[in-house]
Amino acid sequence: MKIQGISTQTLRRLPYYLNYLVNCEADGGYISAAAVASALKLNEVQVRKDLATVCQVRGVPKKGFPVSDLIEGLRDCLGQNNVHDAILVGAGNLGRALLSYKGFEQYGLNIIAAFDIKEGEADGKKIFPLEKLPDIINRLSIKIAVITVPGDVAQQVCDILTSNGILAVWNFAPAHLTVPDGVLVQNENMASSLAVLSNHLKSRMEGSE
Amino acid sequence: MKIQGISTQTLRRLPYYLNYLVNCEADGGYISAAAVASALKLNEVQVRKDLATVCQVRGVPKKGFPVSDLIEGLRDCLGQNNVHDAILVGAGNLGRALLSYKGFEQYGLNIIAAFDIKEGEADGKKIFPLEKLPDIINRLSIKIAVITVPGDVAQQVCDILTSNGILAVWNFAPAHLTVPDGVLVQNENMASSLAVLSNHLKSRMEGSE
Repeated sequence: MKIQGISTQTLRRLPYYLNYLVNCEADGGYISAAAVASALKLNEVQVRKDLATVCQVRGVPKKGFPVSDLIEGLRDCLGQNNVHDAILVGAGNLGRALLSYKGFEQYGLNIIAAFDIKEGEADGKKIFPLEKLPDIINRLSIKIAVITVPGDVAQQVCDILTSNGILAVWNFAPAHLTVPDGVLVQNENMASSLAVLSNHLKSRMEGSE
Repeated sequence: MKIQGISTQTLRRLPYYLNYLVNCEADGGYISAAAVASALKLNEVQVRKDLATVCQVRGVPKKGFPVSDLIEGLRDCLGQNNVHDAILVGAGNLGRALLSYKGFEQYGLNIIAAFDIKEGEADGKKIFPLEKLPDIINRLSIKIAVITVPGDVAQQVCDILTSNGILAVWNFAPAHLTVPDGVLVQNENMASSLAVLSNHLKSRMEGSE
């Protein structure tokens, strides 16, 4: 496997390649890095390097890479051939929206349990009280957690998660999390994205007055 | 207003400040940049600069900034005092999850209509056929659109949106979008984030074998 040491920047581009390749009509089953780069408006040298990293098979001069091998290599790198069980903490509005989203499994994430201070049910899934976190994480050997709690309790929740063996945190709370070495936090901040959009709109509207 | 020319990096930090200030217990109604920086693990000089940008009132030596003015200034910069109507295109799993999310309004976004190739209903909201996009965008003067269609049709949808006056696009499709000058695209790629998490897990698991 070549995927050890693959950069985060490269990883973030892979879903774009995969989406394109699954939908493209490849000529004779091969596609060139130039064609992919042009379709996705990316730099050709970069695309060639990225594809060579994920593809087990070498590109053929004047033909390119075999599309089926590329797709297989991309799925493998993206963890899509290998579904990870995960838990979600915080069953408020955003947590519930994510629980109802049927698309995570295709990306290799299977949310098997949700936790909140309030017990209940969401989208047919039982919501467990926070006290059960350590037990369930350990018993099911869960390594990925999604945090959708309010920002002011996110660090506290994160500490419980990491002290029980969680190695990867997908953080939707508007809070900077401190984690032990070896744990990765991937931040997703909807409010920040909306702020950027809203500010752009404001300046455009004021500019046009 | 000082918010013209505020940088995207600063904007993305503002929700963190707001979240902290709304939940903190301020001493006598004032808070110092140092206290905020320490709580959020950010650089103090940067925090002081950010807060001065959003706050209409000057900080007082040895006391800091008035918390209520900071909160007001932050809400204003973030567009939260000014709800924007928006539309959503693509009522698949992700689109439906976002439609069901009740939290956008607090961030200044009100999704008033959804569109898809298939008409229907989601979360009590009617889903309109794509042909109605131009009419509704124009009639209601919509400027923000959320794209949750599959990657291979995202550019096509985006072209319809921008040619009808959309100025800000929140793109959840795994596709690079090309837009006219003056239109802003904010990309959100769940698959990319999951790829980063999954890869980290893989390398940790292989390393520990």
